[in-house]
Amino acid sequence: MTISNATFTKLEAIAGRDHCTCKKEDLACYGYDATARMHLPDAVVFPENARQISSILELANAEKFFVIPRGAGSGMTGGAVPVRGGVVLATSRMNNIISIDTDNLIADTQPGVITGHFHVAVEKMGLFYPPDPASSDFSTLGGNVAECAGGPRAVKYGVTRDYVLGLEAVLPTGEIIHTGVRTAKGVVGYDLTRLITGSEGTLAVISAMTLKLLPLPEAVGTMTASFDRMEDAADTVSEIIRQSMIPRNIEFMDNASIQCVETQLKIGLPVNAGALLIMAVDGSHSEVADGMEKLRTVCEKMRATEIRVAQSSQEAQNLWRARKAISPALFKYGPDKINEDIVVPRSKIPDMVRRIKALKDETGLTIVAFGHAGDGNIHFNIMLDRRNPEVLKLAEKTIETLFDYTLELGGTISGEHGVGITKMAFINREIGPVELLLMKKIKTVFDPNDILNPGKIFPV
Amino acid sequence: MTISNATFTKLEAIAGRDHCTCKKEDLACYGYDATARMHLPDAVVFPENARQISSILELANAEKFFVIPRGAGSGMTGGAVPVRGGVVLATSRMNNIISIDTDNLIADTQPGVITGHFHVAVEKMGLFYPPDPASSDFSTLGGNVAECAGGPRAVKYGVTRDYVLGLEAVLPTGEIIHTGVRTAKGVVGYDLTRLITGSEGTLAVISAMTLKLLPLPEAVGTMTASFDRMEDAADTVSEIIRQSMIPRNIEFMDNASIQCVETQLKIGLPVNAGALLIMAVDGSHSEVADGMEKLRTVCEKMRATEIRVAQSSQEAQNLWRARKAISPALFKYGPDKINEDIVVPRSKIPDMVRRIKALKDETGLTIVAFGHAGDGNIHFNIMLDRRNPEVLKLAEKTIETLFDYTLELGGTISGEHGVGITKMAFINREIGPVELLLMKKIKTVFDPNDILNPGKIFPV
Repeated sequence: MTISNATFTKLEAIAGRDHCTCKKEDLACYGYDATARMHLPDAVVFPENARQISSILELANAEKFFVIPRGAGSGMTGGAVPVRGGVVLATSRMNNIISIDTDNLIADTQPGVITGHFHVAVEKMGLFYPPDPASSDFSTLGGNVAECAGGPRAVKYGVTRDYVLGLEAVLPTGEIIHTGVRTAKGVVGYDLTRLITGSEGTLAVISAMTLKLLPLPEAVGTMTASFDRMEDAADTVSEIIRQSMIPRNIEFMDNASIQCVETQLKIGLPVNAGALLIMAVDGSHSEVADGMEKLRTVCEKMRATEIRVAQSSQEAQNLWRARKAISPALFKYGPDKINEDIVVPRSKIPDMVRRIKALKDETGLTIVAFGHAGDGNIHFNIMLDRRNPEVLKLAEKTIETLFDYTLELGGTISGEHGVGITKMAFINREIGPVELLLMKKIKTVFDPNDILNPGKIFPV
Repeated sequence: MTISNATFTKLEAIAGRDHCTCKKEDLACYGYDATARMHLPDAVVFPENARQISSILELANAEKFFVIPRGAGSGMTGGAVPVRGGVVLATSRMNNIISIDTDNLIADTQPGVITGHFHVAVEKMGLFYPPDPASSDFSTLGGNVAECAGGPRAVKYGVTRDYVLGLEAVLPTGEIIHTGVRTAKGVVGYDLTRLITGSEGTLAVISAMTLKLLPLPEAVGTMTASFDRMEDAADTVSEIIRQSMIPRNIEFMDNASIQCVETQLKIGLPVNAGALLIMAVDGSHSEVADGMEKLRTVCEKMRATEIRVAQSSQEAQNLWRARKAISPALFKYGPDKINEDIVVPRSKIPDMVRRIKALKDETGLTIVAFGHAGDGNIHFNIMLDRRNPEVLKLAEKTIETLFDYTLELGGTISGEHGVGITKMAFINREIGPVELLLMKKIKTVFDPNDILNPGKIFPV
């Protein structure tokens, strides 16, 4: 697809000449995401409000071009990549926090607000927005809602879906709709809010959202536990949950992740440990003291070789910086990355860890695993050079084996990244044909001309 | 609609002769719900499993009769009432808890399990299922999911939607589908789980569900605070939230509710108080002690005339028994009840309470208000004799005024009861025409022949 000069002029009329581009050097900046797949769009437009988004989509339906919504382009499965060309609709100008309501514990924001900025803004007011994807320093709230982002705090607090009360969104056909409520509860009509949340930008363009906030916990305690073997760390996670503890975070890093991040950050991670758990507890001061003690007891019982409690918020922050640094740091091991985010029932983490180890031994591939152990959510990464066809084939076969084993254990092939383009070929291993057909028909209800973010989720 | 003998015989072949009835005296038991509206079905069938539900729905499509799913018939808006006749599909035989998984904090259950029985079963194992509609002693989990039930604990723990991880459901066309996951997270495909949750039995018949559980809190503290004026109680609720406290419950009762329940139960409620707040705090023992102290301080500051802390779990249980008794006890004030469950942003509760008082004075109607103050969710009841057309007309006009004011304050006309038949005429005050059309089209995707629970939610 290429759009005509006449169409581009109409886009300029809608968003303003300074807010549209079709220069090649600009297009290159809006053709990729964190998968490093690249497809050039035909143009990029930066609307200022819902009305402009509406006009762009009306034009797209009239002139039959694709529109691809884009937050920060930090997605892990290609959701923002314009695989069939078309116009990228970037939300970067719609980056205002509209209001933070301390009386009702809600906030209204535009979609282009950086998640980390939002965290800072609400925390200043004594409030708390739990969803914290590792990308939160640059990803946007709109992108987080579109993908139903998770993050380390999901183990206690749930995912983005659990904090979206209502949306203003623009349908692919141009109508501006309002879904959900501004109150703690609401059950009038079908739940369009959660249908759009996690729909990966295929059902509507989110133009504003009402988010639920919590009171900021009084205190947070952070500790790490080192283990000789990954299996011991995995058993520890299962044991923590079995004892009915729900910490704020239980993250794990395997030896390859630890080494990789330590080389880069030099903050004193235990480079010889087989695995590291990073855990945190929050609540009142007394609760945190209790929780930390309980965690320590479990870790000791489960053969932790070293337990360290962060002595300052600086030390705790360093640990989270290390955790967030893993994904980008992995390129040390190879120019290309295949990144998956499988989830298994928490009690099955030890099985999965054993299987990953076996796959590593069997294939000789560079496999790095880390992630949200408390959720059973494992980021499984194969580092490789895609130009080597044999290695690529082996890697792809390994992913298939991993997905099948995940599903056998009662898991899911994506906990927080979505399907996008990278998992499209696998969706029918998890979702049956009747369910997929229902989803496709819902897509057609919202987007009869298949204008919005085509070529995603559903295999053709 | 009446179904033929031949069709009835086919139903008997599917579910067994002992599990179908078309005797008038039986039909009368399946034609009503808590709204006291009555429409006789043509038959009632009691399937044993998803396969039988599937066959019933296939037959319904082939022979064009309506199917109305029914849990315990305790709904507040007519969701289970067969307004156009047809076959009531009662889930009472599908009442097994399939499994409770203490390692993964999930449970699998059939739809006909009584919510209160489920509470007892999981609590015995040290686990906790928060949703607790006032009907929990008789309502079913399937009905709760279909309506997205709430309850007093929603202020801290959210509603049924927040605890549904996955569903087995039967489409109106007969296909058995599986939605969602058995893990803490999952974002593969559109969120059919939450689309079906709260769809009031119009999109699918739920045949099994995977529910999320929490660890049972170590301790619960319960207290009541009496106030001379309802407005003072309302201000207190706003102040509690403003101070970033999220108790387990904040319920309120107005004087009429207090008197009514006390007459019936005689447990020593303060019959002269203008309003009573019933509050609870849960967590560790130290957290509960802290929380109770903070609540007491706020209540004292806000002019509570008497504060009582429940000294035993028996005393606390009596208070919750009183709270649950309100709705049925109100018939003391009149043979008929119009029951609404509006929600306003929590800071607007004082405005709403003032407005309700004014409506009471202006109209002279018997208006009783109680509910989940912590959510801003007010159960507003008009007690009347429907046979008096003038009073009925005045009551209906009053409800309209109340709904308009609710929406003006940024609220919703239903927090947990749904639309059903009783709010159908008002849905378009809250939901716009484009959004309603989307919902109707989704209904058509699921139910092309309009077989399942027709005549609900959407005004014709």
